[in-house]
Amino acid sequence: MITVQQAEDIILSQAKDFGKEYIAYDQALGRVLAEDLTADRDLPPFDRPTVDGIAIRYNAYEKGIRSFPIKAVQSAGEPPIPIDTETECIEIMTGAALDRSADTVIRYEDISINNGMASFTVDIKKGQNIHLKGRDKKEGEILVKAHQVITPAIIGIASSIGKTSIAVKKLPKIIIISTGDEMVSPESIPSAYQLRRSNGITIQSVLKKYHVEADILHLNDDYEEIKKEISRCIHEYDVLLMSGGVSMGKFDYLPQVCEELGIKKLFHKIKQRPGKPFWFGKNNADKLVFAFPGNPVSVFMCLHRYCIPWLEKSLEIPGSSPQFAVLQNDIEVPFSLQYFVQVKLGTNQLGQLTAESVYTNGSGDFSHLADTNAFIELPLEQNSFKKGEVYRIWKYND
Amino acid sequence: MITVQQAEDIILSQAKDFGKEYIAYDQALGRVLAEDLTADRDLPPFDRPTVDGIAIRYNAYEKGIRSFPIKAVQSAGEPPIPIDTETECIEIMTGAALDRSADTVIRYEDISINNGMASFTVDIKKGQNIHLKGRDKKEGEILVKAHQVITPAIIGIASSIGKTSIAVKKLPKIIIISTGDEMVSPESIPSAYQLRRSNGITIQSVLKKYHVEADILHLNDDYEEIKKEISRCIHEYDVLLMSGGVSMGKFDYLPQVCEELGIKKLFHKIKQRPGKPFWFGKNNADKLVFAFPGNPVSVFMCLHRYCIPWLEKSLEIPGSSPQFAVLQNDIEVPFSLQYFVQVKLGTNQLGQLTAESVYTNGSGDFSHLADTNAFIELPLEQNSFKKGEVYRIWKYND
Repeated sequence: MITVQQAEDIILSQAKDFGKEYIAYDQALGRVLAEDLTADRDLPPFDRPTVDGIAIRYNAYEKGIRSFPIKAVQSAGEPPIPIDTETECIEIMTGAALDRSADTVIRYEDISINNGMASFTVDIKKGQNIHLKGRDKKEGEILVKAHQVITPAIIGIASSIGKTSIAVKKLPKIIIISTGDEMVSPESIPSAYQLRRSNGITIQSVLKKYHVEADILHLNDDYEEIKKEISRCIHEYDVLLMSGGVSMGKFDYLPQVCEELGIKKLFHKIKQRPGKPFWFGKNNADKLVFAFPGNPVSVFMCLHRYCIPWLEKSLEIPGSSPQFAVLQNDIEVPFSLQYFVQVKLGTNQLGQLTAESVYTNGSGDFSHLADTNAFIELPLEQNSFKKGEVYRIWKYND
Repeated sequence: MITVQQAEDIILSQAKDFGKEYIAYDQALGRVLAEDLTADRDLPPFDRPTVDGIAIRYNAYEKGIRSFPIKAVQSAGEPPIPIDTETECIEIMTGAALDRSADTVIRYEDISINNGMASFTVDIKKGQNIHLKGRDKKEGEILVKAHQVITPAIIGIASSIGKTSIAVKKLPKIIIISTGDEMVSPESIPSAYQLRRSNGITIQSVLKKYHVEADILHLNDDYEEIKKEISRCIHEYDVLLMSGGVSMGKFDYLPQVCEELGIKKLFHKIKQRPGKPFWFGKNNADKLVFAFPGNPVSVFMCLHRYCIPWLEKSLEIPGSSPQFAVLQNDIEVPFSLQYFVQVKLGTNQLGQLTAESVYTNGSGDFSHLADTNAFIELPLEQNSFKKGEVYRIWKYND
């Protein structure tokens, strides 16, 4: 059996570039940017008043002039109107383009206007209240670097620079396959010895954060059916995420089926709880199979601990730095497995993250996944963990 | 002019319940749950082995029996098979339903099977390796409380309990209206004195996090057109989010138009930068108008500081506790306005959030919105802020 660290290394070494594609900017939220966004012209593209008021030539002010006939009103979106002589002013609005003949703007609050004359008594500075052309960024300068998740702010910037088609990382084609004769659809009334399926929809929902629209398939514990479907899926998809069928049971066919189909085992079983029987492999075409044990908590843990980091690395999302939290209670671990405990996160008065562990009845007990926020990962080397100690966490309910 | 706190109080006092609706569980991710989810039967619904192996009656073990003929193989999804005499065992798989006639399970790793006989030498405990019916939750017990955002784990739980139609909070109907003659579409090649629009798509993108699909409209600075369209929209929508047209400019028609349409001003102008000219009002039917100033940074700040908290309160999402960060540089504020500064967040060695401020060229400079994560809110009462001091932050790029 390998360690959690070894499993992580093997899985991350299979990170893969799925290429890029161009999509409309208004569909790009949450996708991963695959090109730098650069300024198509200077920002701002013209000298613009930052207030509503009048524009004058500072020279006139230096000569003692404090009262100016208004030559014209310059609104936003119009060609700039020049001042013909330095004794004139232009009434000008925020967002308008200031003509080069004016160099200083005085806000309405500081002037009075009577009979077409604008006057003021305040002291002013040359160039005040003007946001100069190119002051924020120069044409061609990078505004947004590639390899980050596209946020609303990035969408807004793309819109501003007319970048209506954006290169984003292509997403892997994923199918989620659950197995188990006892699992019926959520629409069914299960018999006393059946359960409703949930792993498929849960995994699919987690992947939606990355805009991966995974397909879902359920298979009964029928050797030939499983073999036929995996054979089909390994051709049609980049990644198979499976749940169930990898343990010691008589009907746990997956490892054998995979081997027969040329899907090479990279590991089977990790020194961890939950999720010990996790099987991972790939075929010659680098198609990957993550085969998780069937219990909902095991699936959830393996997905967040291994599969999501693999996906983020494949999409070249800069690895979010590891997160740690302060344990809020003592935990004794009576076995030699790296233990992942469901915790509720909080913050203490120092502003540190805290993690309060929740008692559960093993990996079949999914009833706490909704009211906890993370797994805390307790190192294999120890069996005794004390309140106040700090360990790594893996968040799930963000 | 009112303070930030007064503005917040006024806006939050207008939080409104938009009712609830039922949607399919697999469409509910990210919506707000409007009912408790309860266990439709005991969890687990039957006694289930947590390992693959054999099931025996402990009584037999007490009598010294260590070798048992295998009566049958019990797989998951089948009706439970009873043991007829205490000298027998059942070979049983994880997830199967254990019959009441057996009470203890021994895993394959601890037994040997020869000629239909299962034998073991290990010590066992009565009831081991069984996840008892109702051990996690009893039928009718609450699994997930109402008034939280639906996560993948909640979708999974809903699936498990057959809750295929879920009550969620209804979302307000929102339209985003931008104004300004200088603003052209992102598809256009702007003239030297025009800009491409971005506020509409930015606001729309932020609201998508809440699954609000807001409409977008752009209006030129034409008094009659603006009046006609606002009159239409205030009937058709619950909320109007506007940008531009609320300042001192000659073409800043919104406050007047709103008044003429019976939309009562609740405030105009806040002691803050950016976003000072923010106008907020409502009509007799409690339709709301958030009219932000037109600069992208002002819009972004007002949206996250006021509008999103209003939306979260309206949807009854439990208020996320305020977040604070340690300032990483000194800031001098040469004006008497509550100052919101764009910051990059990090963490220090104590695990505290840190906030490094970014120098910008005022509220027209949107070039940093993509590489910062939050606004830090610097209190109105001070002008001098020092490295190491802790202030409240408002995150935007999560």
